[in-house]
Parts: sequence; C-alpha cells; structure tokens
Amino acid sequence: MPRFALIRLLVLMLLGMSGTPAAAEDGYDLWLRYRTVEPEWQQRYNPAATAIVQQGESPTLAAARAELERGLAGLLGRTVPAAREATGDGAIILGTPDSSPLIAGLDLALERLGAGGYLIRSVTVDGRRATVIASGSDIGVLYGAFRLLRLIQTRQPIDRLDVGETPRLERRLLNHWDNLDRSVERGYAGLSLWDWQKLPRFRDPRYTDYARANASIGINGAVLNNVNSNADILTPVFLEKVAALADIFRPYGIRVYLSARFNAPMAIGGLENADPLDPRVRAWWRAKADEIYRLIPDFGGFLVKANSEGQPGPQDFGRDHADGANMLAEAVAPHGGIVMWRAFVYSDEEPTDRAAQAYDEFRPLDGRFRPNVIVQVKNGPIDFQPREPFHPLFGAMPQTPLMMELQVTKEYLGFATHLAYLGPMWEEVLDADTFADGEGSTVARVIDGSLHDYAHTGMAGVANIGNDRNWSGSQFDQANWYAYGRLAWDPNLSARAIAEEWTRMTWGNDPALVEPIVGMMMGSHQAVVDYMTPLGLHHLMATGHHYGPGPWVDDLARADWNPVYFHRADREGIGFDRTASGSNSVSRYAPAVASRYGSLERVPEEFLLWFHHVPWDHRLAGGRTLWDEMIVRYSRGVEQAGAMRETWAALAPRVDAQRHAEVSDFLAIQQDEARWWRDASLAYFQSLSRRPFPESYAPPAHDLDYYRAIRTPYAPGN
Amino acid sequence: MPRFALIRLLVLMLLGMSGTPAAAEDGYDLWLRYRTVEPEWQQRYNPAATAIVQQGESPTLAAARAELERGLAGLLGRTVPAAREATGDGAIILGTPDSSPLIAGLDLALERLGAGGYLIRSVTVDGRRATVIASGSDIGVLYGAFRLLRLIQTRQPIDRLDVGETPRLERRLLNHWDNLDRSVERGYAGLSLWDWQKLPRFRDPRYTDYARANASIGINGAVLNNVNSNADILTPVFLEKVAALADIFRPYGIRVYLSARFNAPMAIGGLENADPLDPRVRAWWRAKADEIYRLIPDFGGFLVKANSEGQPGPQDFGRDHADGANMLAEAVAPHGGIVMWRAFVYSDEEPTDRAAQAYDEFRPLDGRFRPNVIVQVKNGPIDFQPREPFHPLFGAMPQTPLMMELQVTKEYLGFATHLAYLGPMWEEVLDADTFADGEGSTVARVIDGSLHDYAHTGMAGVANIGNDRNWSGSQFDQANWYAYGRLAWDPNLSARAIAEEWTRMTWGNDPALVEPIVGMMMGSHQAVVDYMTPLGLHHLMATGHHYGPGPWVDDLARADWNPVYFHRADREGIGFDRTASGSNSVSRYAPAVASRYGSLERVPEEFLLWFHHVPWDHRLAGGRTLWDEMIVRYSRGVEQAGAMRETWAALAPRVDAQRHAEVSDFLAIQQDEARWWRDASLAYFQSLSRRPFPESYAPPAHDLDYYRAIRTPYAPGN
Repeated sequence: MPRFALIRLLVLMLLGMSGTPAAAEDGYDLWLRYRTVEPEWQQRYNPAATAIVQQGESPTLAAARAELERGLAGLLGRTVPAAREATGDGAIILGTPDSSPLIAGLDLALERLGAGGYLIRSVTVDGRRATVIASGSDIGVLYGAFRLLRLIQTRQPIDRLDVGETPRLERRLLNHWDNLDRSVERGYAGLSLWDWQKLPRFRDPRYTDYARANASIGINGAVLNNVNSNADILTPVFLEKVAALADIFRPYGIRVYLSARFNAPMAIGGLENADPLDPRVRAWWRAKADEIYRLIPDFGGFLVKANSEGQPGPQDFGRDHADGANMLAEAVAPHGGIVMWRAFVYSDEEPTDRAAQAYDEFRPLDGRFRPNVIVQVKNGPIDFQPREPFHPLFGAMPQTPLMMELQVTKEYLGFATHLAYLGPMWEEVLDADTFADGEGSTVARVIDGSLHDYAHTGMAGVANIGNDRNWSGSQFDQANWYAYGRLAWDPNLSARAIAEEWTRMTWGNDPALVEPIVGMMMGSHQAVVDYMTPLGLHHLMATGHHYGPGPWVDDLARADWNPVYFHRADREGIGFDRTASGSNSVSRYAPAVASRYGSLERVPEEFLLWFHHVPWDHRLAGGRTLWDEMIVRYSRGVEQAGAMRETWAALAPRVDAQRHAEVSDFLAIQQDEARWWRDASLAYFQSLSRRPFPESYAPPAHDLDYYRAIRTPYAPGN
Repeated sequence: MPRFALIRLLVLMLLGMSGTPAAAEDGYDLWLRYRTVEPEWQQRYNPAATAIVQQGESPTLAAARAELERGLAGLLGRTVPAAREATGDGAIILGTPDSSPLIAGLDLALERLGAGGYLIRSVTVDGRRATVIASGSDIGVLYGAFRLLRLIQTRQPIDRLDVGETPRLERRLLNHWDNLDRSVERGYAGLSLWDWQKLPRFRDPRYTDYARANASIGINGAVLNNVNSNADILTPVFLEKVAALADIFRPYGIRVYLSARFNAPMAIGGLENADPLDPRVRAWWRAKADEIYRLIPDFGGFLVKANSEGQPGPQDFGRDHADGANMLAEAVAPHGGIVMWRAFVYSDEEPTDRAAQAYDEFRPLDGRFRPNVIVQVKNGPIDFQPREPFHPLFGAMPQTPLMMELQVTKEYLGFATHLAYLGPMWEEVLDADTFADGEGSTVARVIDGSLHDYAHTGMAGVANIGNDRNWSGSQFDQANWYAYGRLAWDPNLSARAIAEEWTRMTWGNDPALVEPIVGMMMGSHQAVVDYMTPLGLHHLMATGHHYGPGPWVDDLARADWNPVYFHRADREGIGFDRTASGSNSVSRYAPAVASRYGSLERVPEEFLLWFHHVPWDHRLAGGRTLWDEMIVRYSRGVEQAGAMRETWAALAPRVDAQRHAEVSDFLAIQQDEARWWRDASLAYFQSLSRRPFPESYAPPAHDLDYYRAIRTPYAPGN
C-alpha cells in the first residue's frame, strides 16, 4: 500500500472509526472505565503486559482472564493475547496453586491469605519476568485481576509489585429493596434491574455487568428483594428466576440471598399460623430451604425484617426475635446458609424513644441466637438520617455477630440529584469508639469481629442501583456504591483515599481534575447535613417520600412519625432531650460515651440537638447563640452547594460533555433545593423562636405558608 | 512518519480504538443506525457528498445539518465538512427559498408541496453538481435530510435524485399513556421517558434522541400524559416541566399536547363543578389555555377521554360530548390549538353490545363539533384486539374530522416479548372499504380527509416507548414505532415495503438477512392472532394486565368485562352473534358491509366468530368443522412461533451478538407462551365443545385446572 493510501486510511479511520460509533460517555462503564492511558504510561506498562496466562479452568478464572483482556485492551490500546504458557518477559499469570503448577512452584505462602485474599507479585520464572496474580481460591484471583487493572487505572507502577490483601469481612452484601413489580422502595435510579417478567429466559447482559462491578470491589452477595417482603418470591415460579440470576452471578463470587416474609407459611404455604415453635411451621421452612438449595446450591440465606413497620414476625405468635431467627437458621444450617435478622424494630406500640428500642429488645437476647444467625444493625439508632451517632447495640452484644446496615441509596440525603459522598459519614461511624471493652473499641472492630471474636462478620448496603443508564441515578452516586464496597472489604480504609481512587478511575487522573473533585466530594456530606438537619436535628423530611423539608408536620397517626416529635422545638428552645432528664436513651451507650453525649458541655456539636433540648439563646463554643448558629449552618450548607456548582463549572474543559452536563444540571437542582431546605426550615423555626435573622443573613424568600403548601406527590422511591 | 510507524499506528488504532470503546449494538440507535456502508457503496456515494451547505439559520435547519453530519460521518466513514457555499462538485445544499438565495434561484416549484413536504433533487448550480434538499418550510428540510440518509441506509443511488414527498396527514401523533409517577399504562419498555422529578432542570440527552427518531419518520406531535389523566399536569409546576420538553422538541417539528382531565376545574381550580356550559368553567379553561400558551406558544392542544371507564366528562353534568369538546376547543382556538376527543366510550351502564356504543353515541353528534375538534376513533370497535374489523364510525361522520387511534404498544399482542409486526394489521384496516360513498371509500380515504374533505386530519399511535435501552422493550417492537410513523405520514404505504425499509436500516442490507427478517415480520401478526384469538375471537385475555389466556373468566363485576361475554361458547357453539338475530351491531356498517359481515356464508373467516355464533360442527369453506379448524389455527400459530425461532437462529452469523441473543431469548419466551395460549384456550373450549382432538394434533399438556390456576400478579403495564 503506498504511503499516501496508508495516511488516507488512517485519516478515514480517525474520522469514521470504521462506522462503529464511539460509546458515549454516559456513566454506564462505572469505575470500570478502561480508557487508554497516556503514551508515557503506555510505554511504562507495556513491558509488563505482553500476555495473559490463565492456568486452570473455571468460570471464575475465565472471568478474571476476560476482564484482564478487556481492561488491558482499553487501557493499553492494544490486545494483550491470551497464552497457555509464559514464553517471554511480561506475562501476567493467574491461577491458584491447585490450578497452576507454575504458581504452586513459586512458594507464595498463599495459605496466610484468608478466603478471597490474593497476592500480586512481580517474579522471575525460568528467567522470564512475569506478574503473578495468585490466590488460594478462584475468586481471589478475580479480585486480584481487578486490583491490577485498578493500579493501571490510577497510574501506579506495575513493574515491581508485591501487593497482598484479604477482605476483613466475610459477608459484603448489597440489600436491594426491590419489589416484584420492579418498583424499588427508596430507589432513585429507575426500575429494579431484575426484570422478573422476562426471567428466567432473558438473561440481560446487564446482569453480568452488575456482577463485574460488584466483584471489582469485593461485594460477594446480593439480597435480591425488598425487606418489606412479598412471600411470592419463595414460590417455584420465582425461585426459577432467582436461580437464573444466581447462575449468572456465580462466576463473580456473588451469592444470592432472599428477604423472607415471616408469615410465608401462611401466605403461600397454606398453614394456619407461622409460629416458629410449631413443628409444622418448622417443617415447612426446612422443606422450603431444601427446595431452594436444590435450585441454588450456594444460596446465601435469608434476610428478615420482622415485627417492624407492620411486617409479620414471631411476636405475632407470642415468641421473640431469637425464636424466629433460630427457626430459619435451623432450616438453612444443613446447607451452610445464614440468617440475617434485622434489629430495626419499631413496634406497633409507641415506645418512649425509638432510639432506645432496638437496644432494649435485642440486648437481652444476646447469647440466644444460633451460630448461623447474624443480627443486622443500622449505623445509627433512628433511620439513616443525614447524621446519626453510632447505634448503641454496637459493642453491646458480644455473643452475637452484628453486621452493619448502611443505606447507599439517599433516602434522606437528597435522592439522586444531590451530590453527597457518604464515605466520610460511614468513616465517622466506623471510627466511633463504643468503649465496650475500653478505649479503642471502635465500631469497625465490632463488625470486623476482632473485638468479640465473632464467628461471622459482614456489612449490608441498601443498594442505590436501578435501570437508569448510569446505574445509580447520578454519576456521583456511583461513588457511594463504590465506597460502600471498599469499606465492606476493609472498614479501615479512609474515605478520602477511596474518593481519590474512584475519581481517578471514573473521571481521570489529571490532578487538575482529581483535586477539585475529591474536594467537592469530601465536603458534600457536611453540606447536606448543614442545609437539611444541622447540629443533630433529624427526621424533619416531608411525609412518605421524604423529599423536601417538613419540620412542621405534626398530624401523623403516631407521635414518633412526626418531625415535631424529633425536633421538639417550642418558644423556649429545640432538641430531643435524651439525657436522664428526658428519655434517657443516652444511657444505652457505655458509660464513657453516655457521659460525653449526655453532657451539654461535652457533647460534640454535631449531636447537640440529638441528645439535648437547648434554649434558643444558649451560647455555643464559638460564641454564637444556638439560634444564630442554626442560621449560620443552614446558610453554610447552601453556600457549599453553590461552591460545588462553581467548582464543577470550571472543570468543563476536562470532563466529557454528556457527563459534565448531567452533573451540572443536578448541582443546579441541589442548589435550588438547598435554598428550599434552608428557607423552609428557618421560616418554620423562626415562627417558634421569634428571634431575628442576624445581619447579612437573608431571611427566607417566602413566608412559612408558602413552604407548607408545597406538595410533591409524585416524588420517586415510595 | 516512517511507513512502519504508520502501519503500527494503524494496527494499534484498529485494536484499541484510541481507548474509546465501540458502542455496543444494543438497539439504542434504533433505525438511525449509521454504520459504514460497504466500500463499493462508499465509492458510489462519495462524489455526491463532499460538503454540507446549510443556507439560512434556524434551530431546525441546524438540526438537519447536524443529522447529515452525524449520519454521513457514520455511513461514509469520514467527516463531510459543513460549508457556507458550494465550491466544488458534490455539495448537499439544504434550505428554503426564504433562507437560501441558491434554492430560491432554482425554480423548484416548492409551492406545490404542502406543509412539511420536501424535494431532493440532483442539480447543477454554476456548473457544479449538487444535491438540494429543499422545502417551503424548515421542517420539510429536516424531513428531507432524514430521507437522504435513509436512501443511503437502504443502499439506493443518490446521484440522480428527484424525490418529492408531502405528508398526507396533518397531525401525526404519539399518545403516551404515561403517568406522573413515571409508570406507563400498558407500557412494556420500562419507565416513562419523562423524568418529571428532574425536569425542568435536567434535560436528558435522550429527549433529543426521541425527537430525532420521531422527526425521522415524520411524527410531529406527542401527547405526553396518559388519557386516564391526572389534573396535576395542568398545574404551574408541571407546565414548566412540559415547557422544557417542548423547547427540546421544537427544532424537530414536534409539538406537545396534553391529556386534559375533564374535571380539572374542580380538581385543581377550586370550582364546584366542571359543567361545560357554566361560564365560570369556560373562563377557567380559557385562562388555563392562555397560561399554557404563554409558556408554550406552539402548544398543540388537548386530548380528552371523557365518560369512559370512570373518567369524568360532560355527561356528569347532563351535557353531551359535543358540549364538552366545544368548550375546550373554544379555549384553545385563539391560539390555534385543537381538541382531540376520544370516541372510545364505555359507559357506566352496560350497553347491549360495546361494539355499537361509540357509533350510537357519536354518530348523532356529527355536525355539532367546532372546527378545531377532531374525534379520535380506535381502529376497531372493541379495544385493540389482535384483530378487529374496522370501526363503524369510519365513514359515518362526514362532517366531523376523524383521526384514527392505533395501539403501537402490544397490550393484547404479547407485550414486548412476542414478535408481532403490526404493519399488516394496520394496512388491513386502512385498506378496508367502508362503502360510505360507494366502493373505494376506504378507511384510509376517511382519515386522510379526501372522502369527506375534512379540515383536519391525523393519526394517533399509543406509544410503546420507555426508558429501556432499546426504547420499545424489544428490538422488533421498534418496527412498530417506525411503521406507525410511516403510515401516519402516508396511509397508503405497504406494510411489506415498510418492513423491508426498517430491516435494512436496523439490521443490514445483506439479502440473506433482509428476506428472512421481512418474512418473519410479515407472518408474525397472523401467528399471534392464531395462537391467541383465531377466527374472530376477541378479548379472552386474563384480567387486568391482559397477560396470558383467560377465556374462562366470568366473575368480573360487569358482563362486558368478561371473556365469556365475548366468546359466548357453550355446549352448542361459539361466537358473538352481532347479526339481526343477536345484538345487531353489524347494522352500524354501510349496507354493503353489513350484509357481507352479517352473512354466515360471506363473512370473511377471520371475523367469523366476531359476528356469528356458530355451531361446533359447522363446516367451514376448507371443509373442516369449526372445532377442528380452531385446533388447526391455534396449532398453526404455535408452529409459526417455532418457525420464527428457527429462522432467527440461522441468522446468528449475520447479526451482532447482543441483539441476536436478546431476540433469541424473546422468541423462546414467545414459543413457550404461544403453547400456553393454545393449550389453555383449547383445554377450556374443549370442556364446552366436548369434541376430540383430530389425530396428529396434541392435546393440551395439562388439564384445565392447571391453566386456570396460573396467576401473574406482577405482569407489567397495569
């Protein structure tokens, strides 16, 4: 071919890309965004990636090889061929000692790694340089493959590697609050991914991409259906569909679990009761478990929400939570399954203070649960508020494995349109010291099992995933899925490091991009707390959908459903007295914690109104009155929302157009709604405090009646 | 650059595509799939596409130029540059006589073209060869641009063009049955595209792609919300969102319309009634129309479902349909708006025969409607059944413009998973002869206005569009959207020609692909009729969601909700006697039609049981008894479903993997469900006929109780 023709062909290719349009940058790729690295990095990486040598055969090893092929093709801009043996320098060798004689011969001491752990090491084999990705288990190899790709995605050298890692928690689960009609409770990302109508026949390729994304961060289980559960999921027609998903997820190390409706023996089994001590009920569950395991041999187990918010449970039959959990545990035990029993209880009778209820119900049951039961406890004692102190059960059940439930979807943090990176919030609770066994008894040490030597450990994240093209409803909510997975793998990781890692993988490695984005993310959670519920305020959202402010709501049937119950603002002051002079729920914490939280002087300001009813004119440490400080905080949140918008606008030249525009539009919504929150909340609180706005702080744009009249009946996620 | 380096670069580009992954073939592109043509066609097309010359400025002309740029870049594999003037051979010149002196100078007699018409002609300008896309209106230019691209997509020569076309109908609308919470009534493609929660701020790029797709087939309006309407769509908060969509759609010639809830003056206006003759009510609607037109100057008008299936209407206040329609028409008339008033009535009292009800209510009103009212009539007299005779109102209202409502979404034709190309069904009804003004008075001539000289003409298609990645819930349902648009543009087009055009654009031009696909499509509708409701049977679907067979259903509150009401099978025979000996609704047709349909000998076999109650042993023309013929037809439908599956399997080497797999899975579902339909229906009918299955026809796989017990409460679209 003459040179001219070659150049012409080159130009044509550049222009037309052979008629294959480039994939739009719409966020579908998530953090598995394998765009080609800069030429200088290509040169650095090339010698260490000349071939992919998979030794041994299994679906999981094949998935690891396929991911490396796909990832390296994108990142390095060329195909890295698969090979049976390493015949030159630069091979990437993957396998286990069982599958690979080569790895067996390297004496890597893989037995030190626990389940799912892996090791990536630069070695020399028969005089040839190579990189091994080795593990005692196939799934560890897959995790290692994703790690190697992440190293390249974040522009770290790969020529002298010696990286080893083991997940610190055993069960790293997503909880999908997905209904059988594909609606998603508290879902802001479209419909459920699970297209039950078309399963089991239609195996949407998206199911595989879901599994890839989860495996890349070490998530190893998914509860497929809502905790407000429908017994039909346990009928044969649906179990066949569940099994189809399990088959797709299996190579990626993801086991399926189901939320079990406690009265399923009545709802679909034809029994007259669901009493956990009734032999017929016990037999029904055993048979049901056997049926499930015949279809899904690695079925993970059941998640149960019982006697809470109207769900049936053992108390309906005069039994307690341990009776209920143990019956189910007995049914799945022969198959190696577990039962996750939620501690989020919320009885039909009004408690004195819901913040103490779970503690009071569960603490006395410590030691009564079968070994394959884990009690699943939300991060805080109320319900996924923008900020909560840690749940007092952590540290209080030394004989019962506790796993932590976090809400990745942002029910109370602005849905999908508000940018709020939850890493710092989760880090805060994991770092909190329970003082259960003296100083340093952090929540992280409770849930990683090291404090009480738990037989099982785990974390559950309420998923923010739906069929929106970007998966999470917004580009930045992908970071919460990512951060949740990373913290479930290792609760000691720093939120900032995770944010930086995610930013590099998702947006790019240009420091002029990474720094501002990480900065936005790290300040974003506090901004939402400030413009929604500063200083320990909580549960002030509008009724039902929880979209927008509703601090004035006082007409719901139960006292503890009403925002006024939680803020208790009056002419004199504001805040929920949870000290000895009030509900005394502070006493559920260890003494060192209780005395700090219970002291008006020593309580951290961010929890002030969570634990104390405080006069409007009370002077805070900074010198301002509480009333003035509230105005300052609300206003600061709005300013921060504006600042994020400006930061993002300046990044336009460095971000692909479609994703940039989407985030810009969402930040505009956030700024509007931050103002709405501030103005509506302050208009209402001022009607009680009767105090003026400090100079230089604008009063609300409208009067209180205006805000009270706003109705948004079609807000999503209900 | 040395030659070696050039080759290397070339290879790297081929392999890595510069790190920009190729777009997966997932159906998102629809028929606007601009993959590069074969090299020999590139050579043929290249000389006629050297530059794109847009003369004049407008958002619509810019959209036409942008589409040509995008389309030609993909199809020809190279950028075709935009230019101000044609400076060499091969320019594509677009504009109107007003915008382009060049086009004005060509003396193209564009005034012969009606609104939206265009002309594409190969010309010589100042000695240079060029192709002009000319129209009297900007939107005509956009339609012409899409036509030129279609010529290339279907591999037709473009060097000697003289193509002119004008849409035959004025209003070519989609009706979206989309609710404000994004659920879609009878939607099988995910959620509504309209993300009301994020509008007006977030302008999803998908809205623009929706507009492009519609403009490419000439659709020029969209009713955004469900005919079972919610008055909140008319509140300021929602009108602002509607206006944002209107702004996005405007350059593509698409006007927005809204379904108006008749009692909106009460629901959101604070009035005590919605009586169309009450001056306060009339004033409220005038003010509401003024408010809408301030936000959306080209707002199309209202669609109304009144006094039907529980919707409020003028009869609630003792008025008739003309009173109601005229009041709304008066409100929008000053702004050039129209009112589309649905004839699908279905009163609270049970009629003798619903097939006659619309005729009986509307025919007497002919002549009473204001000039800007169009009465919207479904294709058949019942409700979008797999096959219906044409609606007797066509031809019966010479003084009232009638537009036809077709259901693009497949409520009664297998949802999204059954392949059923509806072109032949629509062609059949358009070609039907009403005999309203003697022979040749086809339905097409009624709705194109030529028979009665209507002042307005139009067609409405109930959309099958949602947020599924492939838009329509399946790849092949895109063909129904496409065919609907093409027939609304020209009701005389042939269904086969449309199928071939769509296949070439969507799947490719390889004859080994085109012929089998068109063959599948053309036989698919008859297959569904055969396995669901052969020989004129209708309305035998399960309750509510209409998923699956329910011919035995007899327990619904109203007689005419029950399948048994429609098939009337008993020990003696089956079918609905609509002749003089029965409901006599056949008498609503013109005498020539009525006598044919009313005669057991002359009625077309496909409508036999629609009009006649026929003994099981009645001999049909082919010699079989009715009972045997039913078994033959049901079985033929199942066989046809199997044959489609085989045809498709053989196309695997010629179709991209993901789309091929998706269609394969769906065809497997269809085959399963075809068997279900056949076996359940025949098991039930045999319980009445008590006649045996002919030899070589398998009896149902299960007994009737098995089929009656099937429940599918989570079927979508309710």
